[in-house]
Amino acid sequence: MTDLARFSINQMTVKQLSMPELVDSCRESGISHVGLWREPVQSYGLEATAKLVRDAGLTVTTLCRGGFFTAIDPRERAEALADNRRAIDEAATLGTDTLVLVSGGLPAGSKDLHGARERIADALAELGPYAEEHGVRLAIEPLHPMYASDRCVVSTLAQALDLAERFPAQQVGVTVDTYHIWWDDTAPAQIARAGASGRIHTFQLADWTTPLPEGVLTGRGQIGDGAIDMREWQRHVEDAGYTGPIEVELFNDALWARDGHEVLTETAARFVEHTL
Amino acid sequence: MTDLARFSINQMTVKQLSMPELVDSCRESGISHVGLWREPVQSYGLEATAKLVRDAGLTVTTLCRGGFFTAIDPRERAEALADNRRAIDEAATLGTDTLVLVSGGLPAGSKDLHGARERIADALAELGPYAEEHGVRLAIEPLHPMYASDRCVVSTLAQALDLAERFPAQQVGVTVDTYHIWWDDTAPAQIARAGASGRIHTFQLADWTTPLPEGVLTGRGQIGDGAIDMREWQRHVEDAGYTGPIEVELFNDALWARDGHEVLTETAARFVEHTL
Repeated sequence: MTDLARFSINQMTVKQLSMPELVDSCRESGISHVGLWREPVQSYGLEATAKLVRDAGLTVTTLCRGGFFTAIDPRERAEALADNRRAIDEAATLGTDTLVLVSGGLPAGSKDLHGARERIADALAELGPYAEEHGVRLAIEPLHPMYASDRCVVSTLAQALDLAERFPAQQVGVTVDTYHIWWDDTAPAQIARAGASGRIHTFQLADWTTPLPEGVLTGRGQIGDGAIDMREWQRHVEDAGYTGPIEVELFNDALWARDGHEVLTETAARFVEHTL
Repeated sequence: MTDLARFSINQMTVKQLSMPELVDSCRESGISHVGLWREPVQSYGLEATAKLVRDAGLTVTTLCRGGFFTAIDPRERAEALADNRRAIDEAATLGTDTLVLVSGGLPAGSKDLHGARERIADALAELGPYAEEHGVRLAIEPLHPMYASDRCVVSTLAQALDLAERFPAQQVGVTVDTYHIWWDDTAPAQIARAGASGRIHTFQLADWTTPLPEGVLTGRGQIGDGAIDMREWQRHVEDAGYTGPIEVELFNDALWARDGHEVLTETAARFVEHTL
């Protein structure tokens, strides 16, 4: 299964599978990498999940997700930092070196994008050293600009790198996800910039399909179904020196309504078909 | 009504009003600028519309919209160019000097954003001189990146200016619309760049509200209801030398369901409240 050697299935793509089903399905399909999410890990149990994936010989490529750093209220900020320390601990327990960060949207009533981005930097300054001590790298994920107000004020790779470069690369880097950056003609240069300082901490694929659903959260297309040339983006990250796993992370109501193992098999086949 | 001296109502904001109702409603509200759309102009009649607005003392700030330049098929391209020449003629007849261009999305099955953007340049090369002869400036409108695949492959002011600057400013400039650029921390510098070469051909306002509706077309927020600091963007365009009309263009199902004159009055009041 050489073609799947770099493939990682993010568990959100097949969230209808329980943790043991996910692990079994990966084994049956020759998949050796998974990206996990905190909520299903906590539901199954952190130690139990760590043992399950370890015993199955699976590598955990990322844990999703920390972040939500944009609150102004001091108690909310303290809670967010404490929760992110727990996320770092969980990543270390699961044996992954990468915690994906979704930075958070504007606080209610605020119109201050710049201020919100600065508060992310403040949080990273507190969390970076803690993460490094635990062997975990923080990977700021720029989300598509359509999420700028309510989910993530970091909308471009350039913004993510402007934040990340204030810290050592072994503490803070970026998530490169095709879904969020494909429209951006400056992204290839930013990928090169990220690679030059060793900050491409994970590379994720999802395709862009329209029409977008209400709320624009659950319309990420299956690889090959949309407008994104996956090979082109893979070339960019590889030219920038990235040789790690490639994670497919889809949020898609239609995929979630189907049999999870079938979706996993299809996703692996699409990966083989549409990547280098 | 000094406060409304620069206010222009884009007719799409109150599309429930017929052309005569729109003109009457503007007169009652002390509004002297309107932005028009081709379809309602054609329905009422081009010459009749021109006479109606002229007799009412209204200035037409823009005509929306030309564009849709990304087709590959030669016949489709020829048809698009012919239609854009007609749009230029219509703008001239209506007495506006600005035709807003929405460039078009990817052709079916294509993943080639770069090629699509180049085809826009080819079209501008053909249309620019024709527009100038008719006293009309083409205003490339970057649309929010969430429209990149299906409506407009020009997603940022930088991309719009990269295209516009290949041509004289009296032929091709840009539309600055807060809804499409508010998330972009490089946009203020691009507004300065546009102003420096006299390419801010129109300035439009709409607010960013969530959740976005299915299809993400009809969720533009009333001024003041969302995440965008209108005064900040007004300062950017004014610092760049723009002193022209400020158009409010909302596509919003909830506003369209209400009485049109009431929406116009509310929009004018919001303009006064949220601009400098």
